Amino acid sequence: MKSAVFLKPGQVAVEEIEKPSLIAADDAVIRVVRSCVCGSDLWAYRGIGEKEEHSENSGHEVIGIIEEVGSDISTVKKGDFVIAPFTHGCGHCAACRAGYEGGCQSHGMETNFSGGYQAEYVRYTHADWALVKIPGQPSDYSQAMLASFLALADVMPTGYHAARVANVEKGDTVVVVGDGAVGLCAVIAAKLRGAKRIIIMSRHEDRQKLALEFGATDIVAERGEEGIAKVLKLTNGEGADAVLECVGTQLSTETAIALARPGAVVGRVGVPHTKDINIGDYFMRNIVFAGGPASVTTYDKDVLLKAVLDGVINPGKVFTKTYSLDDIDQAYKDMDERQTIKSMIVLD
Amino acid sequence: MKSAVFLKPGQVAVEEIEKPSLIAADDAVIRVVRSCVCGSDLWAYRGIGEKEEHSENSGHEVIGIIEEVGSDISTVKKGDFVIAPFTHGCGHCAACRAGYEGGCQSHGMETNFSGGYQAEYVRYTHADWALVKIPGQPSDYSQAMLASFLALADVMPTGYHAARVANVEKGDTVVVVGDGAVGLCAVIAAKLRGAKRIIIMSRHEDRQKLALEFGATDIVAERGEEGIAKVLKLTNGEGADAVLECVGTQLSTETAIALARPGAVVGRVGVPHTKDINIGDYFMRNIVFAGGPASVTTYDKDVLLKAVLDGVINPGKVFTKTYSLDDIDQAYKDMDERQTIKSMIVLD
Repeated sequence: MKSAVFLKPGQVAVEEIEKPSLIAADDAVIRVVRSCVCGSDLWAYRGIGEKEEHSENSGHEVIGIIEEVGSDISTVKKGDFVIAPFTHGCGHCAACRAGYEGGCQSHGMETNFSGGYQAEYVRYTHADWALVKIPGQPSDYSQAMLASFLALADVMPTGYHAARVANVEKGDTVVVVGDGAVGLCAVIAAKLRGAKRIIIMSRHEDRQKLALEFGATDIVAERGEEGIAKVLKLTNGEGADAVLECVGTQLSTETAIALARPGAVVGRVGVPHTKDINIGDYFMRNIVFAGGPASVTTYDKDVLLKAVLDGVINPGKVFTKTYSLDDIDQAYKDMDERQTIKSMIVLD
Repeated sequence: MKSAVFLKPGQVAVEEIEKPSLIAADDAVIRVVRSCVCGSDLWAYRGIGEKEEHSENSGHEVIGIIEEVGSDISTVKKGDFVIAPFTHGCGHCAACRAGYEGGCQSHGMETNFSGGYQAEYVRYTHADWALVKIPGQPSDYSQAMLASFLALADVMPTGYHAARVANVEKGDTVVVVGDGAVGLCAVIAAKLRGAKRIIIMSRHEDRQKLALEFGATDIVAERGEEGIAKVLKLTNGEGADAVLECVGTQLSTETAIALARPGAVVGRVGVPHTKDINIGDYFMRNIVFAGGPASVTTYDKDVLLKAVLDGVINPGKVFTKTYSLDDIDQAYKDMDERQTIKSMIVLD
């Protein structure tokens, strides 16, 4: 089968590799209908961090059709249309019961997260509780709806996670730091949870426009000290009730801390690429730091799939360009160069 | 009047200084009935951090009688018996409305916290909303009850703060790291909020005994990796629903992080004396870091004063030795050498 392969920083290619098959009794093999590129995939593409050359792609978001299931799987069967969350919870350990399946305590870290999903088929580990079934078949839905289902594999639940861990409530003033696909989905999430004012820090016109469509009430284009001053002015010097940190850099993290009012939570979902931040520095203002990998299955089943099916939210709009799997390098390149907010790979 | 003065690390003395008087319209002058030594006062006594020689004592906990009030004060009057919280909120800014008056946005940091309170009289800044009135007069109460009122100036609300920011709820498994007066009050708070299991990490027999009396269900005397292993074993390898970090050192902080189950909050109230902790390290487990100065007035008025008056809680038991103001150095010394859990200064 065809699969994207990470060749080296700045280059991803398609190669023919062996089609995956069942290994464990709780595996499922999925034929991919849509896949995509994640902002977190770009770290290695940009040469940040350590990723081996000529290694499996880091793609971890697909929707598809169940091809085959192991003997322990009873929740889905061959032919079902599913969202494949990037987290693979068991549903019954203390972490999963608390709604934090990203830290599932039943599975080892190596099988609790997805990888290699920019491909024609994927092997999905610990499938029984984690997979989310979509009613019907892909042909029953519009292209826009399929894009929104794909967003439920990571980017929309991740934006929702920022808002959930930051306790966004009805009437809150929320700041979203970062205007990537996750930041934009965090705007959707804040609105869905009833935030009254949603300020997004965004420097790019296309993203600003989508943010406003998703429910943002204010745009702040300035960064650093200037951006902080502008947000504080917008909030009467008080700061925000919740700050959703959707980037993961030193600057975005320090900005998020500065914008939180005393007692507010910084909900962070950008994979941290920060130097040390002394946790004493924000102690005096009671700033809370929360976040990590999202609880994809939980949010999809509890809130998000229904909101998409009902047309209440349209997170698929973050996919502003589509590509065939053969054009995967272009999909990375365009996203890296901000020619698209998020790149979708169409396989059917 | 007599006041304790910080002479140098290892030495506190009593000197005659000018009696404080009203400066601002929202000041109150209080005649001190009971004062005490805080664990945080010991940092400078032990030579950790930078405190000027021959400077004001860092004491910040008293109960007493109102001697005089400024023209802006309407909530208390001369002769009233009050708890003087170490935080001085305004009650109406965004931080105070959210119940985080430690970060009150109306006042500058220099007048928002108490200092110099091991003395016969204190000037209490921003008194109108912050002071907590006790019904009647000191002579109406037992020595034990007076001790519990004194605990409401800092140590009990601080223990309660750890439990509140860590969202301790009915049925939770809670770990308290630290067996100082704050850690012991955190045990009281966890029980008051309905925790089912309360594990305290404590190496000292007198404190273990008091912890059990306050509601602890398990004692772990081991520290570091050994202590972590023991607590994890007690919680079936899952970790705790909430960890209350009541020390502030590197070891206690890292221990607290290790004991939290995915998604659990580390509620920290020990003034941080840590090196940098990379906030990426606990991202993968969704560990939440919360805490800072307590919301003393809020907790006293909402929960704690009534609980003391009703005899539901007895935080004053943390004062295991009493001293006259003249013996202030001994009060520090005994607490530093763990001859007493917390030293009370009796002024009447």
